[in-house]
Amino acid sequence: MSQSKLYKKGPLCRLFNIDYPIIQGGMVWVSGGKLAAAVSNAGGLGLIGAGSMKPDLLDHHIAKAQSLTTRPLGVNIPLLYHQVEEQIKVALEKGIRIFFTSAGSPKKYTPLLKDHGCIVVHVTSTPELAAKSEAAGVDAVVAEGFEAGGHNGRAELATMPLIPQVVDAVKIPVIAAGGIGDGRGIAAAFALGASGVQMGTRFLATQESSAHPKFKDLVIHARPEDTRLLLKKLVPVRLLKNAFFEKALQLEEQGADVETLQNLLGKGRAKLGMLEGNLDEGELEIGQISGLVHDLPNVQELMQRLLHEYDQVTNSFA
Amino acid sequence: MSQSKLYKKGPLCRLFNIDYPIIQGGMVWVSGGKLAAAVSNAGGLGLIGAGSMKPDLLDHHIAKAQSLTTRPLGVNIPLLYHQVEEQIKVALEKGIRIFFTSAGSPKKYTPLLKDHGCIVVHVTSTPELAAKSEAAGVDAVVAEGFEAGGHNGRAELATMPLIPQVVDAVKIPVIAAGGIGDGRGIAAAFALGASGVQMGTRFLATQESSAHPKFKDLVIHARPEDTRLLLKKLVPVRLLKNAFFEKALQLEEQGADVETLQNLLGKGRAKLGMLEGNLDEGELEIGQISGLVHDLPNVQELMQRLLHEYDQVTNSFA
Repeated sequence: MSQSKLYKKGPLCRLFNIDYPIIQGGMVWVSGGKLAAAVSNAGGLGLIGAGSMKPDLLDHHIAKAQSLTTRPLGVNIPLLYHQVEEQIKVALEKGIRIFFTSAGSPKKYTPLLKDHGCIVVHVTSTPELAAKSEAAGVDAVVAEGFEAGGHNGRAELATMPLIPQVVDAVKIPVIAAGGIGDGRGIAAAFALGASGVQMGTRFLATQESSAHPKFKDLVIHARPEDTRLLLKKLVPVRLLKNAFFEKALQLEEQGADVETLQNLLGKGRAKLGMLEGNLDEGELEIGQISGLVHDLPNVQELMQRLLHEYDQVTNSFA
Repeated sequence: MSQSKLYKKGPLCRLFNIDYPIIQGGMVWVSGGKLAAAVSNAGGLGLIGAGSMKPDLLDHHIAKAQSLTTRPLGVNIPLLYHQVEEQIKVALEKGIRIFFTSAGSPKKYTPLLKDHGCIVVHVTSTPELAAKSEAAGVDAVVAEGFEAGGHNGRAELATMPLIPQVVDAVKIPVIAAGGIGDGRGIAAAFALGASGVQMGTRFLATQESSAHPKFKDLVIHARPEDTRLLLKKLVPVRLLKNAFFEKALQLEEQGADVETLQNLLGKGRAKLGMLEGNLDEGELEIGQISGLVHDLPNVQELMQRLLHEYDQVTNSFA
């Protein structure tokens, strides 16, 4: 097989020292060490999703990933939990030098991480936040659209209009995220001016992800309209339809206040649903592209398929 | 200048007998005869947006467009107003043979229109509705994402994940709409599998559109996050921030019921805002791509720019 046109394409491959500008998004309870290592071994960039993990669990996942690959690995650290500094400390001690930060200000930890020689990428949802991230010294931004799974921005900008607006707002490389599930989406992201993609939902539906098998099964049978951005008065999050989803939707349509929504959400619902497989009461974070995802390949097979599709699509433009 | 790669590209150019697969979306009070004729003269397909127009006003706009061009012209007829049948009758009598229908069932008027030898395209927002439209006998579908201006679907599927899912669900050509404002967006739509694009907001911000000059000025100065999908309990509609928008948003967050929202909306607000230029009290329908639109070219200039950008982007894939 000849080399894919994505091989060493663009600035992200140099920045991260990877073969293909395809990044597996950090997903709480889903992208542990096993998935991240598989993606990095396949030539992309695997990210361990630190989410609300306690530092010792993060330490465990990093060690596991490092036992499975010698290629570059990163962590995604959402800045909204109280143990952020301990998570960063653990990752640095383990030798991680690629940090994706999200859900907070890029000003807070970028200087510290740059002082440690790290590559820092911040996840943004508006051109304004992307420009602020660039000013804070990050090396690249993820521009993530409304259609993405899990935590989401308040501006509700979808990927198609978001990417070119972010590309016009910054000089650093832009990684497109949200609604990308195959080689068509990757080619579209490049057409919009992105230098690479971050994919979550598609990597969740692989053999190596740590999502519960029953959750994976639900995802690959989901209909296109089965997700919704909910809990907008808390941190907006895109969820797959289930009993918990219906309760949240109903409360939201009735104009429920923050306290009521917080009481409904409680604690540990994401772990309950995505890792432990309680499909009724758990919080099932997933993107709109789930309607396009119908199988559970292993990561190596998936990566080869993505490269092949990308080449097919872009050859048709010649 | 050499021929653009979009010249006679794909099945839509044959279907409509046009030069470029670029369609100007029907926009109530904005896409009258003047704009539609300008787009058709530039080699795209201009659509007169019938919206809530009385039949004699629609008759006037069709006559005007026909006095300005001999190229193909279409009308967009939303199926949610009571005078739909009279609008169709007027358009047929005037010789219109390209109908875009939206906001209703594709089963209702497609047989009648096909009996009159028309080309029928239905605007859809889910793969399921696209498949139903194909089964109803339409010639093509528009797949319009959450980021589009004006009336919108309830599933909130964004363009990036929507297009490939619709392409996989039907055999007829798919026209991508929502969040497309330049040649990058057009190339992205083709990468996703679409056969062409429908653009609204970008054509609103031209010399020939009948949007009020003050509204056009607001659009080209809008920030990326200045629109929102509102009035979800009525017909969801994407609006630009103004005093009316803030009132609607506040009521919606309080869980207002249908009657309260209907009383707020009243009648004639779209005309008040978009045609008459009351920027505070009017309903200003616009898409998320408004953040990317910064000028008011004439349609011929805009079309040349789009073709040039498309060629640049797709040449970079070679």
